[in-house]
Amino acid sequence: MTLQEIASILGCEIGVNTTLISGMNTLKNASGSEVSFIANSKYIKEIQNTQAAAVIIDAALVEHLPSGCIALIVEHPYWSMAELSKYFAPSIEELNAAHAAVGEGSSVSLKAELANGCVIGKNCTIMANVYVGANVRIGDNTIIYPNVTIYRDCVVGSECIIHAGVVIGSDGFGFATNKRGEHKKIYQNGNVVIEDDVEIGSNTAIDRAVFGSTKIKKGARLDNLIQIGHNCEIGEYCVLVSQSGFAGSSIIGRNNVFGAQSGVSGHLEIAAFNTFAARTGVTKSVKESGKTFAGFPFMDHKLWLKIQGKLARLVK
Amino acid sequence: MTLQEIASILGCEIGVNTTLISGMNTLKNASGSEVSFIANSKYIKEIQNTQAAAVIIDAALVEHLPSGCIALIVEHPYWSMAELSKYFAPSIEELNAAHAAVGEGSSVSLKAELANGCVIGKNCTIMANVYVGANVRIGDNTIIYPNVTIYRDCVVGSECIIHAGVVIGSDGFGFATNKRGEHKKIYQNGNVVIEDDVEIGSNTAIDRAVFGSTKIKKGARLDNLIQIGHNCEIGEYCVLVSQSGFAGSSIIGRNNVFGAQSGVSGHLEIAAFNTFAARTGVTKSVKESGKTFAGFPFMDHKLWLKIQGKLARLVK
Amino acid sequence: MTLQEIASILGCEIGVNTTLISGMNTLKNASGSEVSFIANSKYIKEIQNTQAAAVIIDAALVEHLPSGCIALIVEHPYWSMAELSKYFAPSIEELNAAHAAVGEGSSVSLKAELANGCVIGKNCTIMANVYVGANVRIGDNTIIYPNVTIYRDCVVGSECIIHAGVVIGSDGFGFATNKRGEHKKIYQNGNVVIEDDVEIGSNTAIDRAVFGSTKIKKGARLDNLIQIGHNCEIGEYCVLVSQSGFAGSSIIGRNNVFGAQSGVSGHLEIAAFNTFAARTGVTKSVKESGKTFAGFPFMDHKLWLKIQGKLARLVK
Repeated sequence: MTLQEIASILGCEIGVNTTLISGMNTLKNASGSEVSFIANSKYIKEIQNTQAAAVIIDAALVEHLPSGCIALIVEHPYWSMAELSKYFAPSIEELNAAHAAVGEGSSVSLKAELANGCVIGKNCTIMANVYVGANVRIGDNTIIYPNVTIYRDCVVGSECIIHAGVVIGSDGFGFATNKRGEHKKIYQNGNVVIEDDVEIGSNTAIDRAVFGSTKIKKGARLDNLIQIGHNCEIGEYCVLVSQSGFAGSSIIGRNNVFGAQSGVSGHLEIAAFNTFAARTGVTKSVKESGKTFAGFPFMDHKLWLKIQGKLARLVK
Repeated sequence: MTLQEIASILGCEIGVNTTLISGMNTLKNASGSEVSFIANSKYIKEIQNTQAAAVIIDAALVEHLPSGCIALIVEHPYWSMAELSKYFAPSIEELNAAHAAVGEGSSVSLKAELANGCVIGKNCTIMANVYVGANVRIGDNTIIYPNVTIYRDCVVGSECIIHAGVVIGSDGFGFATNKRGEHKKIYQNGNVVIEDDVEIGSNTAIDRAVFGSTKIKKGARLDNLIQIGHNCEIGEYCVLVSQSGFAGSSIIGRNNVFGAQSGVSGHLEIAAFNTFAARTGVTKSVKESGKTFAGFPFMDHKLWLKIQGKLARLVK
Repeated sequence: MTLQEIASILGCEIGVNTTLISGMNTLKNASGSEVSFIANSKYIKEIQNTQAAAVIIDAALVEHLPSGCIALIVEHPYWSMAELSKYFAPSIEELNAAHAAVGEGSSVSLKAELANGCVIGKNCTIMANVYVGANVRIGDNTIIYPNVTIYRDCVVGSECIIHAGVVIGSDGFGFATNKRGEHKKIYQNGNVVIEDDVEIGSNTAIDRAVFGSTKIKKGARLDNLIQIGHNCEIGEYCVLVSQSGFAGSSIIGRNNVFGAQSGVSGHLEIAAFNTFAARTGVTKSVKESGKTFAGFPFMDHKLWLKIQGKLARLVK
């Protein structure tokens, strides 16, 4: 699609412009063939260094754009971004791609569905009622238990075990809302990358990224019924206990342990090697390592125990 | 079934009565061809206006019945109601209904199962391993991702997106318990109605109503791993973040936002346009709008922050 | 496998020993043809009475072994136990077992998969996209809704209702971790046993035992999206409300009621006939019956209400 066509979709005027645009991305990550947007003034520092070909932007911020970057001026940039995202969404299936390729020694149930363009490695087991979407790549020696769904373009490593009912790559929870309270979907055009030696428990859900990838890194262990929001990054050898939840874009360092029913807010960074007790609600980034936390809002585990003791004495 | 046959199932005596009964319902909603029940004296006000043909009732309450309404006098009305519910449960499948009807432009995976009597609109995508039950109706342009289950008699609107692993219309959590602690299932003979432009995240579960419908109204956005209890009503454009849960029969007004891992007790009414922070546990109805709540038991968000601050200082 | 072969896998030296070993088990439950392990000195009392043929053990503890019990001396017993567990893991499928046997009057969807060696009772309904693993046994009159997965060797009783998306018998969350933070899977070689008259809500996950059985006893009612960890035992007629979670090895007495989003830590014992309010976090065993609890850490329900009242007054 050309920039001019995009301008026309968004109802703004940029004159003749035949620059070909391949997709959308954040200000920080956009390349010269991508369009970006700014919908929140806290990202204003990122405008000046963006490589984006064009930015969907409010008129008041245009002066901050670097030279050569086209302004797509609209009244509601987030809503317009949502509108445009639809045009870059891939189709659900790839009818014209090659048939699935299955490596030597792999066993695929006749009741599984491998979409066109997917590539399964060697010695994998793909069980009944599994759906593997278009262009998905799966490594070697990986087991996919029944009724798992892997959406298109996702990647699963080698030596992984994916338990029944897991969903990998469903759409992240993204939409713009207008003044009448109506929502417009932001298409989630990224994917999920699961590295090697990862085990994922039953009925866990891992959302695809809006741009780029949601990542589950090497050696991580995820229990059952866990929620991983779009664009999260779960570090190497992390241990996530059942029913824990991770909101969008949080980056979890290696070997963190999250207890059952714990939760992490969005856009946080958690340093490596910490432990979070069951039910901990992590509301801020953590820069230290080797600590144990508890409570909601979260705090040092010992402090939390002290407060609970104090509370019990309050009513005596 | 005639009223006399019903009396015989319940072991009570009403004499010859050939009134045909088509189903069961609440005191409030029962029509003249339905049987109702009263198992909790707090519903006593609803007896006098009931249109029900007959009411399963304790002897002590019979005097409150309106004239013309037959008393089905039993020792344990709730247990007897559970007993009778079984007789009105439809069969799981409809072997004699017409084959599924699929609208123009819709694509249905060969690995999906469409039960008899279901009707799929135009331009829908029904992916692999989806089960669409008997008499289900689905609107136009709706996408059902793999491994979704839609139980019989449910309705899904147009422009909906149902992500992988979602269950729509499973039985609500209903049973009577006797003095020995044994349970008897209350058959859930209602359905789920999902209106237009609704998106539902992966592995979310929405239970069918015991009578009538569980409703997800137009434009609502549900994230992953959410629980919607029987007879809930989720208002237009509500936003329910992942792992939140809604107990039975709660009515949520439009444009409410519920944070991750929040919960709402049963039988509440929440006015429109409120926000509930992550982990909020809503224990009472809310009549105001435009508020932000937090905590469990829930309170004003600012008050909650104040208490948390106070607590932290308690132990210093 | 002989004991000598096992010693060789673990890199320890025991000389010629042709005792045939059929599996692994706890110190307490191991028979004379099984190998056990001790990885935590708190189990030291159980060494002296073990019937195990051999025990994986640290050199410092060898003196406690009963005579005739072979010491498999290793540096990291838990890691070695994990290593060995792999050798006793059954294959995912049983290619040489007999075809599934289906009882009279049972209906099995053509889209369901019954693995070899499984036995379905009479008058069951097995719906589309259900997977029933090798050697699974299902009783009479049981309904399995679509997209359910039952892993190999599990048992489901008669008169059960298993709702859509349920996973029975996925691997418990078990692994050893070395000093570099890497994990090694402990294969979960037990199963799940679900007794008669049990109903399980949609997308609930029940993990198989590491040894022995995870048990859901007669008449229990499980709601949607519940997590049952490995080796739990849920007592007769228990009521578990949606999104509650039970960590490994907890034993729940009969007729306990657990509210929505409640949780129970691992290795606890809960006496019969208690009630736990929504969100209760049970951190210790409960010896009394007939009580109502709330809060996290949990306490008497009335005390919890008192504390909440006090807290609200704190900031006034």
